[in-house]
Amino acid sequence: MAARTSLLYFEVPFSLFNNSVELKATQQDISHLLASLDLKLSHEQQFALNGGFFIQYFDTSSNHAIVRGHPEGIITLDLHEYVAKGSTPKFPPQVIQDLERKLKQSLKSPHSKSEPAIKRGQEFEVYYPTMDGRIIEYDIDEIVFEENSKYQNVRIAHSKTFGNMLILDGDPNLAESDVIYSHSMMRQGSSNFSDKDVLILGGGDGGLLNELRKEGCRSITMVDIDAVVLKAAQKYLRGICTDSLDEYKKENYEVIVGDAIAFLKKAIADNQHYDFVLSDLTVVPITPEPVGDEWDFLRLVLDLSTKVLAKDGKLLTHANALLATRAISMFEGELDKLQGFQWNRKEAHVPSFHELWTFYEIEEIKQS
Amino acid sequence: MAARTSLLYFEVPFSLFNNSVELKATQQDISHLLASLDLKLSHEQQFALNGGFFIQYFDTSSNHAIVRGHPEGIITLDLHEYVAKGSTPKFPPQVIQDLERKLKQSLKSPHSKSEPAIKRGQEFEVYYPTMDGRIIEYDIDEIVFEENSKYQNVRIAHSKTFGNMLILDGDPNLAESDVIYSHSMMRQGSSNFSDKDVLILGGGDGGLLNELRKEGCRSITMVDIDAVVLKAAQKYLRGICTDSLDEYKKENYEVIVGDAIAFLKKAIADNQHYDFVLSDLTVVPITPEPVGDEWDFLRLVLDLSTKVLAKDGKLLTHANALLATRAISMFEGELDKLQGFQWNRKEAHVPSFHELWTFYEIEEIKQS
Repeated sequence: MAARTSLLYFEVPFSLFNNSVELKATQQDISHLLASLDLKLSHEQQFALNGGFFIQYFDTSSNHAIVRGHPEGIITLDLHEYVAKGSTPKFPPQVIQDLERKLKQSLKSPHSKSEPAIKRGQEFEVYYPTMDGRIIEYDIDEIVFEENSKYQNVRIAHSKTFGNMLILDGDPNLAESDVIYSHSMMRQGSSNFSDKDVLILGGGDGGLLNELRKEGCRSITMVDIDAVVLKAAQKYLRGICTDSLDEYKKENYEVIVGDAIAFLKKAIADNQHYDFVLSDLTVVPITPEPVGDEWDFLRLVLDLSTKVLAKDGKLLTHANALLATRAISMFEGELDKLQGFQWNRKEAHVPSFHELWTFYEIEEIKQS
Repeated sequence: MAARTSLLYFEVPFSLFNNSVELKATQQDISHLLASLDLKLSHEQQFALNGGFFIQYFDTSSNHAIVRGHPEGIITLDLHEYVAKGSTPKFPPQVIQDLERKLKQSLKSPHSKSEPAIKRGQEFEVYYPTMDGRIIEYDIDEIVFEENSKYQNVRIAHSKTFGNMLILDGDPNLAESDVIYSHSMMRQGSSNFSDKDVLILGGGDGGLLNELRKEGCRSITMVDIDAVVLKAAQKYLRGICTDSLDEYKKENYEVIVGDAIAFLKKAIADNQHYDFVLSDLTVVPITPEPVGDEWDFLRLVLDLSTKVLAKDGKLLTHANALLATRAISMFEGELDKLQGFQWNRKEAHVPSFHELWTFYEIEEIKQS
């Protein structure tokens, strides 16, 4: 079941709104066309408004249409219908496109448009906006896993395009299509992991671990807090983790279910060092100011991570979407504060993110 | 200027609709919250409807809100405002999110959602649906080129994420982010172009030509019909064509402004052959049946292209989005009809397409 809302619009000449005869005829044309869809104008539901007009229609199933004329030269039409589970829409895309075509002709509109219907109250969520607030509709056709862990809501949705997608607390994290995310985090091509000790913070989807296993590391230690994520990934994200989460301890790698912060603190106390630390923890928060828990957490991770780096070691991390410009600039401000370190940024298109994501390499400034 | 429509919804218990006291209180809560946004209920604009309700609000600037209660357990709210050019929205995302949060609390809704506002009548188009009819909002901030050629509307829009995007007759074609498109067409990695004669049909964006120039071909001939596309690409798509369209004739390549079909017919008459033909012409049409002009055109291209292949030559082409399942299956049906030829398909995520695109390699069946 879902409420489907189709939004159409038509460019019309401004002059239409100054010519009451023509305006009346236009409204009659609209009513005539909507009547062919069983949508009828009722009394008290048509009136002039701020130089434009507002008209309201209902059909026999109480679906409604609202037509607004804006004197700036556009007419909008919103068509709202409720589709019960298992039923087919009364106003499917072909009907809407046909209506658009006929109205465009009737209104002599030089430009018209109808967007795909927005669906509300569906069984599962298909709209996940970009970080800069644009609407993106995913082709999700099934929820293959859902569980509330101690830490978060863990969901794996199947997308026809991206494969299985890990969604944590409603945020798409990584999909089976996204190996470029791991390659970008690792700086594949310019990093040499051969015989190196590597620490992954987070990374519960197993993507990074799986790619690093191919690089001849001496050791890989991965610390992720959420056993539910690990379990779900092992089963449903095999497109990116393959068999890497089947066993948590093998010849040269170990997966530890635990708190990355506590692990880092213990490593510092034990004077343990890593050639590479890959921080794949929570996304850099998009908060208005770099204050509060989330930013404190990020600062702590940066501080502790740099302290466990071996000589010539590198901290590799992601941040946020490039278009989350304030979050990115605040994150880079934090990097600038790391005494004795330099950093550089790369961007990559991650398929299921639908946008450019940022990746950082942080290393000690070499003394020349 | 644009009409902005914010669509919200709230899950509510079914039982709400069977309890007139509670329902009345809920409606009053909604009215109270909307009043804080200057939206006021007017007379004759609230009524029961099919077991649910319909309420209509207007503010002093004649923006309107429609609230619908569906007895199946959802309440939808559509907030429509008109924003004049240069003005800021009265209901920006923060206001909508705040309203959602307050309404969710007041309605004791277990689940609510507000989508990014849909904008209609903007200066330029930002919504380009996927081939399977999902809504995608691009971060287009400028139209850098527009001209109607003899053949089509040629537009280049700038996207913050994808760079400049070529849009032909309203269809996004290729963006500066999309070198993978050319690499997928070429079957980079498994094709050997060294000392080969290559023919590109279409390809006016210059992306394929630019990538093939790196492969040590003996000759590359490209035939594109639209000089306006070539001119626009040379100037605005340098991220993919670099300097490849600066000169139309150089040591080992030539760009011919002309009709690919006529070129192929002449090549057949002249008994000319190519080791690779890359057909980058019009997308495979999504028509209900494989009949008519567009499919005839496609059949003709396949027929003529295979006829100019040298011994062991290959025809490389794209088709459509993988999710345009009917178009893909019809296209593959056409490939099956090519006597003596075999084909295989690969898919790739093309960043600016937001979906998986299909690429074909067609070659003669080897006699064993």
